[in-house]
Formats: sequence, C-alpha cells, structure tokens
Amino acid sequence: MSSQKLQTKILNEEFVQLDLSKYQSKVSAIHHHLETTKDEPTGWLNAPLEDNSELVKRIIEIANEIKLNADVLVVVGIGGSYLGAKAIQEALTPYFGTHPNGIEVIYAGQNLSGAYINQLLRSLTNKRVYVNVISKSGSTMEPALAFRVLRQYMEERYGDEAVQRIIVTTDPEKGLLNHMAEKHNYRTFDIPQNIGGRYSVLTPVGLLPIAVAGIDIKELLNGAKQAAIELKEDSLEKNEAYRYATIRHELYNQGYKVEMLASFEPGLASFHEWWKQLFGESEGKDKKGILPVTSNFSTDLHSIGQFIQEGSPILFETLLHFEGISEDYIVPYDVRNEDLLNYLNDRSFNEINCISKKGTAKAHADGGVPVIQLELQQLDEYYFGYLIYFFMKACAMSAYLMEVNPFDQPGVEAYKKEIKELLSIDNINLDDTVSINI
Amino acid sequence: MSSQKLQTKILNEEFVQLDLSKYQSKVSAIHHHLETTKDEPTGWLNAPLEDNSELVKRIIEIANEIKLNADVLVVVGIGGSYLGAKAIQEALTPYFGTHPNGIEVIYAGQNLSGAYINQLLRSLTNKRVYVNVISKSGSTMEPALAFRVLRQYMEERYGDEAVQRIIVTTDPEKGLLNHMAEKHNYRTFDIPQNIGGRYSVLTPVGLLPIAVAGIDIKELLNGAKQAAIELKEDSLEKNEAYRYATIRHELYNQGYKVEMLASFEPGLASFHEWWKQLFGESEGKDKKGILPVTSNFSTDLHSIGQFIQEGSPILFETLLHFEGISEDYIVPYDVRNEDLLNYLNDRSFNEINCISKKGTAKAHADGGVPVIQLELQQLDEYYFGYLIYFFMKACAMSAYLMEVNPFDQPGVEAYKKEIKELLSIDNINLDDTVSINI
Repeated sequence: MSSQKLQTKILNEEFVQLDLSKYQSKVSAIHHHLETTKDEPTGWLNAPLEDNSELVKRIIEIANEIKLNADVLVVVGIGGSYLGAKAIQEALTPYFGTHPNGIEVIYAGQNLSGAYINQLLRSLTNKRVYVNVISKSGSTMEPALAFRVLRQYMEERYGDEAVQRIIVTTDPEKGLLNHMAEKHNYRTFDIPQNIGGRYSVLTPVGLLPIAVAGIDIKELLNGAKQAAIELKEDSLEKNEAYRYATIRHELYNQGYKVEMLASFEPGLASFHEWWKQLFGESEGKDKKGILPVTSNFSTDLHSIGQFIQEGSPILFETLLHFEGISEDYIVPYDVRNEDLLNYLNDRSFNEINCISKKGTAKAHADGGVPVIQLELQQLDEYYFGYLIYFFMKACAMSAYLMEVNPFDQPGVEAYKKEIKELLSIDNINLDDTVSINI
Repeated sequence: MSSQKLQTKILNEEFVQLDLSKYQSKVSAIHHHLETTKDEPTGWLNAPLEDNSELVKRIIEIANEIKLNADVLVVVGIGGSYLGAKAIQEALTPYFGTHPNGIEVIYAGQNLSGAYINQLLRSLTNKRVYVNVISKSGSTMEPALAFRVLRQYMEERYGDEAVQRIIVTTDPEKGLLNHMAEKHNYRTFDIPQNIGGRYSVLTPVGLLPIAVAGIDIKELLNGAKQAAIELKEDSLEKNEAYRYATIRHELYNQGYKVEMLASFEPGLASFHEWWKQLFGESEGKDKKGILPVTSNFSTDLHSIGQFIQEGSPILFETLLHFEGISEDYIVPYDVRNEDLLNYLNDRSFNEINCISKKGTAKAHADGGVPVIQLELQQLDEYYFGYLIYFFMKACAMSAYLMEVNPFDQPGVEAYKKEIKELLSIDNINLDDTVSINI
C-alpha cells in the first residue's frame, strides 16, 4: 500500500478477481500521453504545481470586497461553471446558515424555471447583492438568460454602481461575455483556455464563489498540489488515482455498467453531482461508459439499500470515507432508556456513522457487490483539494482506458440542435456553445 | 388514448417495438390479486376512496396549532417516514423562504452525522419549535437517536410544555414509540398497519408535515381519490398506471436495467428521491429490478446529458411533465442585445423550458434511448396527489410483473445485522426494525 493521502481499497478482491497488472503498459502509455500532449485541454494537470500566488491574492481581495459589501453572492452558471463551487461550498460550510468567514452564496442560470428566477429575485429584496457570472462563451442559454435578468436587476437597483457589483469569469479573449465585460468595464477572471468546464473547479470558476462562502482556498490548492505531486507516477502500485481508474475499468469489462458513489456525510450530496458530471460527460460516448449514480448513506440505505443488496447485479459501489470530521455530537444518557439506546451512551454520532459505514461495506461486499473504498483522513479544505485532483486524474485515465476522449462532449449537440429548431432560430449561432458546454 | 388526468406516452414506439397486449392476462390476474388480497399491506389502494374527513380535520387542527405556536417543525424520520413529506413540501413551496400559509419544516433522524444534529440544534435557538417524530417501531437507529436528542432538547427548553410540542406518528398498538407516547401522553397519529413505509405518504406520516408547510392536503387527497377512481380498471388500454408499469417491464425484458426519471422543474428533486425508494425497494430483490436513477433538466443536460445521449445503452428515460406552473417570468427586452437573446423577448422562462423538454425528448429518442412521457396538467396539490397514487399503483403492478413482492424489503436486514455485530449488541433486538423499515 502506498503512503499517499488517499487510499484506494477493494473489499472483496477474491470475489471480483482483479488482475490489474495486465493494464500497466496501457496505463503507462496513457500517462505519457497525458503528460506530454499539446493537443488536449490538460492545463489542470500541472496547474497546481505552478505559482498561482498573484491569482489567489486577487481572488481573495475581491472575495473580501464582496463579503464586506454584500449579504449574498448570486453565482450565474451551469454544468462545470457551478457544480464544483456548489460541491465544495456545501461540503465545507454549515448545514444551517453560513460559514463564519463567509456570506450566503446562491445559484442562478442552472435551470429554466420561471418560478425559480422570480422567487430568487424576490429573495434579494432586503439583501446587498453581488453577481458572479461564469460562462466560457456567454452564449449558453440558461446562464445567458439569467444574467440578462440579473444584470437589469442590478442596474435598476444600483445604477452606476452595478458595474462594481458584477464580476465576470469567462474566456480571456473571445465570446459574448468577454465582449460585454470589455465594453462595460466589468472586472473579470479568466477561464484558462486549456482547461475544460468539468475540470475547472480549481480555477477562478470555482475559487471565487468558494472564497466568498468563507472557505480557505489556499488550503484547497495545497491539497490539490500534494495530489499533483503524489499522483505523477505511472505505476499502478504507486498511483492511487490510476489504481482506482483501472479497478473500475476492469469491473466495467466484467459487466458492471453502473458505479454508485456513496458518502456518509449528507453535505457531500452536491459533490456527488460534480463527480457525476466529471465521469459521465468524460466517459459516456461511443455507446460506452460507466453510468455514474450516487447515494448518501445511511439515509439511502433506507430507500435504495434494498436494491444495492439484492437487486439486478449491474452496479459496483465506491464508498468515500473521511476518517475525521471536526464537528460531532455525543449520544446523551437518558435515565428512562425508553428507546433502549443507552448501550450507545457516550458514543458519538460520527462513531456510530463510521460503524454504519463498516457494516454497510461488509454487507454489500458479502452480498456480491464489488465495493471500492476511497479513504481520506479529514473532511477539510486540504483533503477536498486532494480528492478533486484525484478524481480528475482518475477520470482522464478511465476514459482513455475505455478509448474515448475525456475532454469532449459531442452528444450535447443533439438536444441543442433540436431546441434550436423548435425556437426557429436563425439570428444566433447556438452551435458556438456546443464545443464548450461549460 | 384515455381521458385520464395523467397521460403515458412513449415517444419512439417503432424503435422499441412494444407489444403490450401479451401482458394483459397477467396484468388482469395481478389486478385481481391486488384488489382482493387480505395478506398484503394494500391499505393504500382504497384509502383515498374512504371517508377520511375526521382524520383530515384533526390533522389540520394540529397543523394550525403548530403554525400558531412554532416557527419551525422538526420532522424526525427516515426512508418512507420523511421522503414523501419532503418531496411534496419542496415541490409545492417556494424555492426561497416558506409558503405564505405555512412555517419552516426541517428534517432530522435521516442521517447519522454529528455535525448535522449539532448544527440543527444551534439553528433552533431563536425559533419556537415543535417536533413530529415518525417511526412505526420507534427502534430504527437514526430517528431513535435523533429523537432522544431532540426530546431532551425540548424538555430542557420547554419543561412540562414539551409534551404539548411533541407529536408522535407511529403504530397504533405496539412498538417503543407507541409505548413512550402512552406513558407520557404525547398526542399521536396512527400509521395504518396495512400500509408500508414507502406507500404511506398520504397517511398522517406525510400529511401532518405537509399541512404544516402550508400545502392544501384536501386537494392532495382529492387528486389521489381521482386517481384511485380512474386507475381501477384492469385494461391496459384504460389504466395509465398499468400501461406505464407494463412499458417499463417490457423495456426491462429488452435489456434496459436502468430507468432515469427526469423533471424540468428543480423543485422536484426530492420527489425523485421518494420515487427511487418506492421503485428501488419494491423491485430490487432476487437479483432483479430496474435501477431507479434521476435527473433534473435542463440542469443535468449539462452534466449527465452526454451519457444519456451517447453512453452505454443501458437506460430508458421517463420524463415527468407538468403543463402548467403557476409562477413564471418573462424574458425582458434589452436594447443592447449584447447577449443576442432578443429573439426570445416576450417568451417566458417556462415556455423556453417546455421547448427544452421537447427538444431533449426528441434528441434522446432519436439517439436510441426509449423515452416515456408522463404528462399532467398542472404542478399543484391535486395533480401531485394524483401522481403519487399513480406511481404507487404502477409500482405494485411492476413488481408483481417481475414476480417479486412489492411490499417487503428482505435485503435491508443484511447491513443491519453487520452493524449489530459491530456494535456488539445483545440488549436490543434490532431485528424488530427489519421487517418494518419505515
């Protein structure tokens, strides 16, 4: 076992009979391609190793300005332009209320619901507002529509000051949003051209909203940097990300077409959504790919648990486990013991949750479900940064093992084409948005 | 096509070549069994047709008392004891803030997170609180632990008045919670003994929290009643629920092992979770069953859309569509037109969302994904009540078509047994909870 910050284990190795060594030469070739290619958007691979202190300083400065002058930041984005920020925000801020170092962050432009945008606007009435619009092209329908509404709202409410209260995160050179920012002097952050939407959470796309929510982005980046260092090996013995990628690929080849990612902390629900996009959009092409689905345990053991244990044997499970969680609650003693729970007295909720994890893993493994465990020490910024990088690198390897391109999304064009026809559009080229889809 | 309140369509019928008539005799036999059996918990089937005016009156009275004397209701429950209430609450209350006729409703006892229970308690500090604990047995670990904590909290805070502020929904005759209620004179609502957890949303299990949230439970029950009347036919031509059940069963037989339920209104996310439990727990046994997964569109078209369009061909899609949504927002005119969206001027968000639905359905159907559409007129209490009954009846039919029992959950025992061993329990019989799992 490696000494890396994340351990990949498979619980029922005898049962699934994994022979990973047969993949080593292919893994090495893909590793070499990833490290050397100039033709693919792999900027995220080495970005954590580069000096980003100027960028981080500027993000923190603007985040501080926002925290000082606003009660709420409205983030306008869809897909890779909001899932990463929402994932980290929800995982690392309180379940009720906001982080002591941050303000409320809410999302718009991620759907087309008239009720949602209407009610969102009403909810802003008594709050000071900033807007961060995030779109590589500026022409993706959902965020473009929401930004039209929110820009007018800000201009009506703040007049000339609206320019100061709108931050644009977009392509540094081209696109509608870039043009708007130049024309109106909005302050901007660049989406690096060599990083695609679903790999962009550690760029300003994710970092600005995350910083505004009160999360320590330096620690997040430190964790990603540690991952970038540790996961640079091509050896399956030494690289936990490649090991995870290869295990899941082998399970796919054995006929398991669905992977269920499950966590035991409810705040990880949005992180699951980020993971679904990363793997689903990277792998799901050419009639191939592992369908990514997710569960929150122990909650969902009381709903989908039955299916996992005894239903159609089409899925394997990946359990995400953080050993330490900073906040906990001790089961109180009750002299009445009418609930017969005094045997748990002095145990904490997190301890019982951990036992629930072990019991679940064993029950599912014994029941014939291949169970992978990804184990990290602490649910915090550092390990979250690590985990994000881990999954991005594992995803690139997984897709290449499946012989599909991890960085494109050709299938997204199909429904956009249909919508275009239904809207009878001739005065706009929606195709502009297709190859970007951030 | 029938004149029923819900229409089941399949978009690419030529492609999937469904011959449903071959199932008619089996469907008729199952229908007869459902209508006549005394051995299965089918109380939900005819409950909407019975006179429930006294029960509804009492629920509304207590809900009014809670709304008058509390700022927040904490619902303690897991699985079928909270998913239905949360589903309807989220679908029919505003995205931001509470319903004008209701108060805040939050959930506890649905996870084992120490951080969650700790932060939930802190969030109650400046609010007046009622608790509704919902559990058939009272011995399911998660809600039992949370109720131990919350009961002590209420007693410390309210003293003798705590008895008035705790409402118990449980088995009318037996179980730990029933005994506690009798001993301490908590007011109770009964969980009917002939209705299982995942079929219980239209009993007090769901109705009390829903009423406190401000939703019209009479209309909800009216919709369910209409469904119970319309869906009493055994003919596949006339019964849309059986038609849906049979289509999905035929697709399962054709090799599609995953069903993706997708909606176009973000407030339906929790409803999807309710649906997942209903179908997953009813069907996923004996190594059979369609894995239920869900998406929220257009949001997820920018994440999992690529996989649906071009990934492994293992799934069919069920699109849930409400024709009317009461709140909407018109795309504003912008003289600058820098976003090139003036061609959408005077269209509403919901109109564009509807076009997105049509485009998505066509793209996915053309791409080879079988697409079922379930169409209802209005996103409101009445149609939601109809839809819930529709799904419950379709689910019972589906499971029986698959020759599994829609009403048990034997696989839930496995992980409980492991947890029991890990906790070295000898002073409590966790098995009590197994056959119930509400």
